[in-house]
Amino acid sequence: MRYAALGGGKRLRPFLLVEAARMVSKSSIDDEEGIWMAAAALECVHVYSLVHDDLPCMDDDDLRRGKPTVHKVYDEAMAVLVGDALLTQAFETMARPEIHPNADIRLALIGNLAAASGTHGMIGGQVIDIYADGNISDAELIGQLQALKTGALIHYAVSAGGKLADATAADLQNLSTYASALGLAFQIRDDILDTEGDAKIMGKAAQKDAGLGKATFVSIHGLDGAKAYAKKLGDEAKAALALYGDKAGALNGAVDFVLERKK
Amino acid sequence: MRYAALGGGKRLRPFLLVEAARMVSKSSIDDEEGIWMAAAALECVHVYSLVHDDLPCMDDDDLRRGKPTVHKVYDEAMAVLVGDALLTQAFETMARPEIHPNADIRLALIGNLAAASGTHGMIGGQVIDIYADGNISDAELIGQLQALKTGALIHYAVSAGGKLADATAADLQNLSTYASALGLAFQIRDDILDTEGDAKIMGKAAQKDAGLGKATFVSIHGLDGAKAYAKKLGDEAKAALALYGDKAGALNGAVDFVLERKK
Repeated sequence: MRYAALGGGKRLRPFLLVEAARMVSKSSIDDEEGIWMAAAALECVHVYSLVHDDLPCMDDDDLRRGKPTVHKVYDEAMAVLVGDALLTQAFETMARPEIHPNADIRLALIGNLAAASGTHGMIGGQVIDIYADGNISDAELIGQLQALKTGALIHYAVSAGGKLADATAADLQNLSTYASALGLAFQIRDDILDTEGDAKIMGKAAQKDAGLGKATFVSIHGLDGAKAYAKKLGDEAKAALALYGDKAGALNGAVDFVLERKK
Repeated sequence: MRYAALGGGKRLRPFLLVEAARMVSKSSIDDEEGIWMAAAALECVHVYSLVHDDLPCMDDDDLRRGKPTVHKVYDEAMAVLVGDALLTQAFETMARPEIHPNADIRLALIGNLAAASGTHGMIGGQVIDIYADGNISDAELIGQLQALKTGALIHYAVSAGGKLADATAADLQNLSTYASALGLAFQIRDDILDTEGDAKIMGKAAQKDAGLGKATFVSIHGLDGAKAYAKKLGDEAKAALALYGDKAGALNGAVDFVLERKK
């Protein structure tokens, strides 16, 4: 579990959670232990999905974040159990009183985390991705698939940060608009990297989707079209936070990071 | 998920949850939707563990409950995702308001479920079981391993039922004593069945542990010794519920079922 979760990575989801909380919070969040714990729990869910996705029976990846994958270092049985345990740990953490004094907020965070990562979220997207190979050529369907597979947890990260910092309904709506655009831009960038990325920089194999003949945002819109689409979504994400001025600096920076990232 | 969860099985854990709730409840639980939902969520956790345990990289079982295992009917990737999704679904269900009107009780149920099924519970027991093969010959260690692997979730079932029915602290203590004895008796019976069970009745392979040279309660205490030990634990479990009289009928019946079960 430590090898998988503490082995680097962009930490994008916990970053989004923390910075969304910071943007809307009326006071400093630096000592708000619950926000940092929730961010760690969220990263555990993301990492569990990577460990299981890398399994030989799934994407069969040998490298992750530039290092051998969990099943390569240990074995497949341990990789299954590590993923199971990281997911379980996330819910145990989210249920703790330190997360937030309001029990109803903790329950909402738990229910929403399960929804974002379950059959109507991340797992649902993964199932479609694996079993619909070659049958998805429609741009709208690709968007829906990716909204489930990646978007749901990115959206959760941002809105959970807002909830933990007692955001207003208007704040939560703005964060939601931001997160939806950011999540889709993230996935388009993933497809761009799969096309023109450097495996050495990414720390994982490139051109896997193209090699498998999968439809991607790049295969549908072309490389330039995909880049323009991602840029437009980035602008939408930033526009949703315009009224927060300088306080939106970190979340705006996340947009630039997502659009420019090399891995 | 439906194939795995609705495909029969003893349903022992949900039975224990419901009957523990019924025993201590001051009114009928028949219309207490939350108790039945929690029982279903708990069964999802148990079934997820079976689906993952049956994987080729784990126990590599072809049969479960007399039917082909999930990875045989679908494939390994789907079996991993089915298990992941059942676990996730369990937490989503437990967080719902219908489970219990008191948010703190729902949070305790979620935190305890994660603890019982995580690294300090079911998964921890499974890791020890897989990776300590041949190195565990000590009766006390076998007991600890099984307390984690099977006992934790059985104990959870009984105590969750009590909590859902607003049991008193004394009730919860009695239920805890009952559940600890029952859980250990359950595992001893598993070892007895592995030795003398009929694969056709069990719907899964027999003599797997003996074949692997694993230490079991039978290899340590002998067949008669193991049976006597299980009987003694069954008596302890019933004694813990003596003061409930006829209301303990179902839970006492569960003890007999565990001691006499053929599968």
